[in-house]
Amino acid sequence: MITDNSIDTPKQRSPFPLDMWYLAAFSKELKDKPLARTLLNQPVVLYRDLNGDVNALQDRCCHRQLPLSMGTIEEGGLRCGYHGLLFDGKGKCLEVPGQPKVPRKAKVTPYFVKEQDELVWIWFGAEEGSEPDVAPPRYEYHNDPKYVYGGDVYHYNAPYQLIHDNLLDLSHLGYVHLRTIGGDAKTHMNAQMDVESEGDQVTIKRYMPNSTPPPTYVAAYPFKGKIDRWQEIEFCPSHIKIWTGGIDANSGSVTDPNREGFHMRGLHCITPETDDTSHYFWTIATNPVTDIEEVKQKVVEQTRLTFDEDKVVIEAQFKTMKRFKGQPMIDIHVDAGANHARRIISTLCE
Amino acid sequence: MITDNSIDTPKQRSPFPLDMWYLAAFSKELKDKPLARTLLNQPVVLYRDLNGDVNALQDRCCHRQLPLSMGTIEEGGLRCGYHGLLFDGKGKCLEVPGQPKVPRKAKVTPYFVKEQDELVWIWFGAEEGSEPDVAPPRYEYHNDPKYVYGGDVYHYNAPYQLIHDNLLDLSHLGYVHLRTIGGDAKTHMNAQMDVESEGDQVTIKRYMPNSTPPPTYVAAYPFKGKIDRWQEIEFCPSHIKIWTGGIDANSGSVTDPNREGFHMRGLHCITPETDDTSHYFWTIATNPVTDIEEVKQKVVEQTRLTFDEDKVVIEAQFKTMKRFKGQPMIDIHVDAGANHARRIISTLCE
Amino acid sequence: MITDNSIDTPKQRSPFPLDMWYLAAFSKELKDKPLARTLLNQPVVLYRDLNGDVNALQDRCCHRQLPLSMGTIEEGGLRCGYHGLLFDGKGKCLEVPGQPKVPRKAKVTPYFVKEQDELVWIWFGAEEGSEPDVAPPRYEYHNDPKYVYGGDVYHYNAPYQLIHDNLLDLSHLGYVHLRTIGGDAKTHMNAQMDVESEGDQVTIKRYMPNSTPPPTYVAAYPFKGKIDRWQEIEFCPSHIKIWTGGIDANSGSVTDPNREGFHMRGLHCITPETDDTSHYFWTIATNPVTDIEEVKQKVVEQTRLTFDEDKVVIEAQFKTMKRFKGQPMIDIHVDAGANHARRIISTLCE
Repeated sequence: MITDNSIDTPKQRSPFPLDMWYLAAFSKELKDKPLARTLLNQPVVLYRDLNGDVNALQDRCCHRQLPLSMGTIEEGGLRCGYHGLLFDGKGKCLEVPGQPKVPRKAKVTPYFVKEQDELVWIWFGAEEGSEPDVAPPRYEYHNDPKYVYGGDVYHYNAPYQLIHDNLLDLSHLGYVHLRTIGGDAKTHMNAQMDVESEGDQVTIKRYMPNSTPPPTYVAAYPFKGKIDRWQEIEFCPSHIKIWTGGIDANSGSVTDPNREGFHMRGLHCITPETDDTSHYFWTIATNPVTDIEEVKQKVVEQTRLTFDEDKVVIEAQFKTMKRFKGQPMIDIHVDAGANHARRIISTLCE
Repeated sequence: MITDNSIDTPKQRSPFPLDMWYLAAFSKELKDKPLARTLLNQPVVLYRDLNGDVNALQDRCCHRQLPLSMGTIEEGGLRCGYHGLLFDGKGKCLEVPGQPKVPRKAKVTPYFVKEQDELVWIWFGAEEGSEPDVAPPRYEYHNDPKYVYGGDVYHYNAPYQLIHDNLLDLSHLGYVHLRTIGGDAKTHMNAQMDVESEGDQVTIKRYMPNSTPPPTYVAAYPFKGKIDRWQEIEFCPSHIKIWTGGIDANSGSVTDPNREGFHMRGLHCITPETDDTSHYFWTIATNPVTDIEEVKQKVVEQTRLTFDEDKVVIEAQFKTMKRFKGQPMIDIHVDAGANHARRIISTLCE
Repeated sequence: MITDNSIDTPKQRSPFPLDMWYLAAFSKELKDKPLARTLLNQPVVLYRDLNGDVNALQDRCCHRQLPLSMGTIEEGGLRCGYHGLLFDGKGKCLEVPGQPKVPRKAKVTPYFVKEQDELVWIWFGAEEGSEPDVAPPRYEYHNDPKYVYGGDVYHYNAPYQLIHDNLLDLSHLGYVHLRTIGGDAKTHMNAQMDVESEGDQVTIKRYMPNSTPPPTYVAAYPFKGKIDRWQEIEFCPSHIKIWTGGIDANSGSVTDPNREGFHMRGLHCITPETDDTSHYFWTIATNPVTDIEEVKQKVVEQTRLTFDEDKVVIEAQFKTMKRFKGQPMIDIHVDAGANHARRIISTLCE
């Protein structure tokens, strides 16, 4: 919670947009054990209670400060692993073993969470006690029977905006991902790129008509020959969608959102851990018509290799930035999308 | 040494009680090599000289600051491993190789040490040059022919008082030590507990009459059936004794210090390493009448497992405390003993 | 660069002498990959371009700060591994992929380097833009056909002057190098030692006439019996030469720089990495007349073992110095050479 009740001092600027849902976990991460995760500088324990509902509390017993994530999930809630205090999903203490009365102050801070689409979202408000006024975003491709998907969560020793920068710039493919999906650097750099910004969103689009389909595409989808390809990025402050794919050349509109063809739909949720570190949740969903499991595995594996390469670059970049703190950087044309996103974040943090 | 010669500024509060003996090492740790150990923020070298006497010096050669613990024990004292200066057990330099005269300022700070009961005690005075005015505490169960014992020294990434808190609270057995000695949490939490504080001591006592003896007890001692059990804790600022055991039910006074029966006597010496880290020396002595070596090993091993569990909890607790610095904690009834001890330490640090 | 344009504040003292050549790398370290190395607190990338010339740049792309050392050596220069900016050896940006014009500010700071004698020297000036007014020192024994040599670069967690101290003091041989080249400590400590200081140089000389040659000497050189031995040290702020060796007893002047006999010539270049860490480049050259490769390997290996021992001592010394910051040290007679060197460095840093 970023609060400032003082009259004379100016309100402190948050390093992250608040009054917003962030991704806290994948549903599959919450089974029978509590999960400790620091989110926006706040240590949080997430757990699925015996009713199957996901809850989130400050990860600290109000008695002697043991992380509640070291406790056990029981009937009623989460029990601390030191002296056995039991808390419900709203942070209320239900029981203090060995004494009949629960002290009035025995409680821990709860967080609003919402589980949907196999994702667990958490709300961080700007004011103490503020409640969500919107629902978290939906993501249909985790439920769509035509799609299969896989993913992971990566820990980054870099602030969240460096990951935004990376995802909003398709030009680095040619240099960072030389050995995986990169292909010819010049082609990537020279394709026409349209950048638009509206409200809190940025969209970046690029189309490559009449291309030779890459091997993964051919294996997954019955293309007839050349294809029309697309790369579309949609940035929101809490997550980025990257749609890529192709249809048979000249078989329909490549820009139509309802286009047919082979799709790879990436969801990238970057949740700050601290000012300088991040959680990067990603999934990649695809719609192969043949060799479904095999294509899925190949797509997930290739995505993973790409993100491994990005991680090395982004963490090295951040290390250098810290060493050369305050030294100027120059901008080049590929920064357009990232710069839009930075302006949006900057406005939201005011 | 905590000193302040200034007139205007208030005397700085020590984070530890001073003018006191602390445990520095087990006798068995000092063989033919010097031992480096930081105690109360002071790097100390302990060594047993060729006469068999234990000495302690500041762990820093006065010439070029190599730790003296990297030197060698020789006739006369401890020789620095860089340029060969030789120091006696009082820190006096006896020889500077290559020059006839030893400079007047060539000396290192010595500490008072006393070896007894297979323990090495060290004195930390509040004023520079202050001398011990009492002898270190005796501990007879390391010498008693009816007893066998074992133990170890653990390094804790936690301040010493969190270890006090843990030892003075028997209620955590049910949650932390669920898999070892815990047993039924509710029984532990609900037993009557008497807490008394006098001078610098706190005693906590708990009796469980007519209980079923646990398997270790049965293996070690010829009980006839049910037993009367005791748990007695005695806190002193430098060490804590925990006596547990049992006698045949209704066979004598369970509160009599000279009671017969099966005894497990724990000695717990917690010596601050720094403000935030600690050395935790523990031994457990017992008096089995059968299977002596086997019972001893079982008792030591079970004690070790218990302390391993405590270490995980206490270090996690400290980590959380640092993250949530300054946030309030609530007290519950089981904190009575620990709170007494904290008041004693607080007064001693003034 | 240490600069201060302010009028009122005094010029900041550099922790290292500037306007000087330091060793940056061995020639053999620069093959087909860029080398990242922090020198005098400045992250530098060194690389050998496709013409075979060595270049050095600030290790930071001016666009998004990826270390250029993660890039690739190409026709024209060094290409950044993130977005592909290409820089020449003077730090000028030659190409920004995807845009026709290179921004005027697209450049990185270059350093003057000079490769000779299989060594790569780098210039650090006191003022921004200052140019070298002298050539780097020559070192003929890397090119002399009568000599063979080997060496290595060690990373030290200790400031550079502690390594100077160690090299300028031959007396520690008896204690630190007991198991390798030390021999009898007393002999080393008691040999006559002449220390002279002139300009920025210190020389330390020691002669041991009519000695029994050590086994390495006998294996390498056809001595007739007893030998006259020398140990000569020459300190310059960026490097130290240590000449040792022997000739047949009474066969000529042992102090003559052109003396015959068996020589071991050590070059020790200590380049600060940061205020508290150092790069220690060393080579040892020798002139065996028999078993050349075998003697060389033995000499290099023995030297390596000695330096391993020194590293342990010096890093432990520095750790203790940090803990006892500000506490006084005493001097002894063997410190004469090191103290001369410290005065020279101190004057150069003003």
